[in-house]
Parts: sequence; C-alpha cells; structure tokens
Amino acid sequence: MPHIDLPNLPGIRGPMSFRPETARPLNQLAEVLLRGESTLSRADRELIATYVSSQNNCHYCQSIHGAIAAAHLGGDEELVRAVKADFENATVTPKIKSLLTIAGKVQKGGKNVLEEDIQAARKEGATDLEIHDTVLIAAAFCMFNRYVDGLGTWQPQDEAMYRDRGKMVAEKGYVALNLGTPAPIGQGV
Amino acid sequence: MPHIDLPNLPGIRGPMSFRPETARPLNQLAEVLLRGESTLSRADRELIATYVSSQNNCHYCQSIHGAIAAAHLGGDEELVRAVKADFENATVTPKIKSLLTIAGKVQKGGKNVLEEDIQAARKEGATDLEIHDTVLIAAAFCMFNRYVDGLGTWQPQDEAMYRDRGKMVAEKGYVALNLGTPAPIGQGV
Repeated sequence: MPHIDLPNLPGIRGPMSFRPETARPLNQLAEVLLRGESTLSRADRELIATYVSSQNNCHYCQSIHGAIAAAHLGGDEELVRAVKADFENATVTPKIKSLLTIAGKVQKGGKNVLEEDIQAARKEGATDLEIHDTVLIAAAFCMFNRYVDGLGTWQPQDEAMYRDRGKMVAEKGYVALNLGTPAPIGQGV
Repeated sequence: MPHIDLPNLPGIRGPMSFRPETARPLNQLAEVLLRGESTLSRADRELIATYVSSQNNCHYCQSIHGAIAAAHLGGDEELVRAVKADFENATVTPKIKSLLTIAGKVQKGGKNVLEEDIQAARKEGATDLEIHDTVLIAAAFCMFNRYVDGLGTWQPQDEAMYRDRGKMVAEKGYVALNLGTPAPIGQGV
C-alpha cells in the first residue's frame, strides 16, 4: 500500500499522476538525459540508469529501465542481468565499464568520484559531456529511486508487464519534447 | 578543480551553464517544488532542502539553500543552523519536524520511510501533498548534491557570496515558469 492516497498505477506513474506539476520536469529530464542527442547510445544510458537503480535496490526502476535497455538492445535481457550482477565481466565496452564505475560511486555519494576515475574514463575515450551525463544520470536515479520507494508505491512482480511497457517507452519516449515553446532555462542557484 | 572543463561559476551553476538542456528541467523542478503553490511555506521547503544537503555533506547546496531559507525567514540564519544541527530542538513546528524526519529517512534511502513516520506526520496535520512534496524535495536534493559533488565543482567558502545570491534567488526564483507554452507532462515509465 502506498504511504499516501495515489492513483492505482505502478511505480512512479502513481505519484506522477498525483502531481503532474512535478511530473513535467521529471519526464523532461529523463527524456533529455536518456534519449536526447548524445554520443552515448540510448541502450548504454538505460544500462547506467538500471545499474544505479539496482544498487539502490529499487525494484520498479531497475525492472522498467532494464526492460527499456533490453528493448534498445533488440531484446538482450541477459546483458542487462549481467551488467546489474557484475558489469566488469559483462560484454560492454571498456568505456561503458569506466562510466558504470563512476555511476556506482555517485550512487554512494558524489564525493566518492576521484580524479583517477575520471582519468580512467578519459583513457577509454569518454568525453566531458559523456562524463557529465553519466554523473547526472546516476544522480537523477538516486532521486527517482528514492521517490518511488519513499512513497511506498505499488511495484508489480510481473516481468511481462515491464517487458511490454519497456518496449513502448523505448519506442515512444518519456515525453514529446518538441511540442510547444521551450520554457526558459534558468541559471541555477 | 572540477573533474571536467566547466565554466568558471560556483557550484551547480558550472554544470548548468555547461549543459543547458538538462539545466532547464532541473530549474523547473526546483521552481515547482520549492516556490510553486503549496501549503508549505517557501522557508519550510528551503529548510528541508538545506537539511538534506547538510546530511549529504554538500557545502555548496547547504550554503546556498540555507541562505535562501534565511532570506525567506527575514534573515534568521540562526534557525537555519539549528535545523541543520538538531531540528528536533529547533524552533520549527511539530509538523515541520515530522516532515524533516521523513526527509532524513529518504536521504538514507526510500525504503527507510515507514508507515509510522507517515502517521506521525499526519497526526501533526501534514497532508498527502505535503508528504509527497517532502519526499520529492529530499529525493531531488540527493540528486542535486550528487551532481554538484560528483563533478568536483568549485564551492566557495565565502559566506557573503551565498548570502547575497540567496537573497536574489529568494526574490527572483529559479526560473520564470510562466513564459512560453508549457511542455507536455508525460506519464512516466
């Protein structure tokens, strides 16, 4: 039972339907980070999101983003499982391994990222933008995971549900970003 | 030295300037959560953000949001310090104490929030929306803090800088939300 009276939808969809004002920027962030223009593939970015969600032990997020990653990988669920269990021995590139290392450190706390982690990623060809996006994906999933678990949301065990929805999100995305006039950017605090 | 080549701006402003595509939804999220329509005061919401940032030991975030909270409180920096150090004995309402308790649990991980924490907040008059927003503020600052620290951003020690900028942000906000056509909301994963 969710801690508050949420619409009867699984995972993050409950609180997003409850509070559309915050759902809007959350979905836009996911769309830009996980699907926007990037030299990292959508599959790689979803793998980073899935790995961080599994480290945070969030069933819903690791299941749905794992399913989205698998859909981007032509259905390779085995690779998703391998990345979650032991990415150093999974069949991903050395660059992605170095970025997963950084993501895992961000999950434990930002100060864990050391200059040597950055140098290792650069050595494998990672760019500043790829490192930036990896840090922000990992940080964002520390938010999404806490949002989903902190409200006690309903997180179904049915793998087929995640597989079906994962295919749909992989195809259609989190939100259509190209409609309407973009809101202003802001400059932070 | 930041881990990547960022514009020479303090804290989150460096990466936000580096990557405006992600700055937009991040600032919109902050604006809705911390300044949008709510039965929680802007000061109370900034205190929750400041408390979580101090628990995550992020110097920039706890300093700037502490300064914004103080500005909303007519300059009461002592209350901000008291909330960070020991909120149970600070001069905030029992309802805000119960919400800070929930925020502190979210900071450690979403599953730490128990039904009894929610009941305690309800007993002090907290609504579902206030509980939702508290969980999301705490979760969001677990993101912002990791973003700021994970990139090794420049975090000045000069208190006067935070005080001045805090007053400005308290007055002007994170981003003007009412310009342009709102983007679509999305429904989550």
